[in-house]
Amino acid sequence: MTTTQLVHQIQTKKSFLCIGLDVDLNKIPAFLLEKEDPIFEFNKAIIDATHDVCVSYKPNTAFYEAYGIKGWQSLQKTIQYLNDNYPEIFTIADAKRGDIGNTSSMYAKAFFEDLAFDSVTVAPYMGKDSVEPFLAFEGKHTIMLALTSNEGAFDFQTLQVKDKEFYKQVLETSKNWKNAENLMYVVGATKAEYFTEIRKIVPENFLLVPGVGAQGGSLSEVCKYGMNDNVGLLINSSRGIIYASNQEDFAEKARAEALKLQQEMETILLHKK
Amino acid sequence: MTTTQLVHQIQTKKSFLCIGLDVDLNKIPAFLLEKEDPIFEFNKAIIDATHDVCVSYKPNTAFYEAYGIKGWQSLQKTIQYLNDNYPEIFTIADAKRGDIGNTSSMYAKAFFEDLAFDSVTVAPYMGKDSVEPFLAFEGKHTIMLALTSNEGAFDFQTLQVKDKEFYKQVLETSKNWKNAENLMYVVGATKAEYFTEIRKIVPENFLLVPGVGAQGGSLSEVCKYGMNDNVGLLINSSRGIIYASNQEDFAEKARAEALKLQQEMETILLHKK
Repeated sequence: MTTTQLVHQIQTKKSFLCIGLDVDLNKIPAFLLEKEDPIFEFNKAIIDATHDVCVSYKPNTAFYEAYGIKGWQSLQKTIQYLNDNYPEIFTIADAKRGDIGNTSSMYAKAFFEDLAFDSVTVAPYMGKDSVEPFLAFEGKHTIMLALTSNEGAFDFQTLQVKDKEFYKQVLETSKNWKNAENLMYVVGATKAEYFTEIRKIVPENFLLVPGVGAQGGSLSEVCKYGMNDNVGLLINSSRGIIYASNQEDFAEKARAEALKLQQEMETILLHKK
Repeated sequence: MTTTQLVHQIQTKKSFLCIGLDVDLNKIPAFLLEKEDPIFEFNKAIIDATHDVCVSYKPNTAFYEAYGIKGWQSLQKTIQYLNDNYPEIFTIADAKRGDIGNTSSMYAKAFFEDLAFDSVTVAPYMGKDSVEPFLAFEGKHTIMLALTSNEGAFDFQTLQVKDKEFYKQVLETSKNWKNAENLMYVVGATKAEYFTEIRKIVPENFLLVPGVGAQGGSLSEVCKYGMNDNVGLLINSSRGIIYASNQEDFAEKARAEALKLQQEMETILLHKK
């Protein structure tokens, strides 16, 4: 999917919501556990109920790997269901991969070819040759961790290097990598005050923003400082939407939560014009 | 597996060799491609031929994920074969994972419980709460990237932060994390001159050392600067061993290459005493 197609979808749906499909068998409605593939059934119901109010889904691979082969089958069925039924949706494999060059190529193959995701999240620690193999895929997007939403972000990401904080150096350096136009960045909503500085370094790139909702970030603050002419934001919410209810009405309640966020987004987009 | 058991195995086998099982279907002997599970058949043959001259195997997950569900089945069969037949072997899932706390817990579950590896590699970028969930598992080891063997290592890992290089700050900081005694570190052999400095910060911890062989690192240099009283090193070789031949004799030739390294190690261990 091209960035233009993503922007078009955002404008049409008046939403830049991404729904995180972090499915934990201990949290989904008990009646689903009797199904052959509870994780996929859960995702399918959530997707069918929310696809018109969001533009993206983001399964985090950890939640699938934790269930072994069965988990990977659920992940594969989920991405295939999305690609078959809702091809306009921007799909993100939240995998946070990264390795030496020839190994990163294998990860890129796994997520872009075998599973056919539109994008994958990667970690920057190993530098250029660990990320460029992902960037080489045309029509695919590589979403690199910059400033994450967790407490541990302050352990290393905000250390002073040279004259700036480390995550800013990560942003600066990555702009010079081959096919850097395929880069997006993860920036946590819990650090809204940082967006002004970040936009000085990467004015054009899309930012994937976790941390609204359960983790305490503010949608309006993020938009105030982080939005660009193309919107340039994908706001992720996972637990706040998918676990809105653990009863028969879980998909309906998830839709209600997603709709609330979409409506806030619509208002923000209106005022932006 | 406890560190004591690992050290005992090293002393018994006079080897601190780890063999990387990075299996690429384009590189294995063609006759194996007719088997139902070529990757597992390849691994099984390599393991049977080399288990007495090495102490550890390290499948890199990228090479399995690239083949989707079938790849994960091969990974699962490989670790199960190791655990069933060679329980003394120290197994490493080279996965380079790391995410916010509750998500890292799912990765830990995937590799320590579902797949039953002894250890997993993790990336430090997201800090303390992204690594501690792995450290919480008793009898398991968490191998964190410090200074990697690739060119991209110089993009961020060696930047000056405060009064030291970034990877040293990563080592320092991680020593204060809960259950830090379960930490090992990845340090590339291609940077042997750095080992002296690293040993000042982490004198006791095991170091997993990729980059000997194909990537050009020197075994004797690494041992000279990196070895401690417990040996404290696991030297990984992947391509140099497993692709020594792509004919019927591949396992035999792999053993010959592994044996060469084991014998160099035996000599080093002798002179150490």
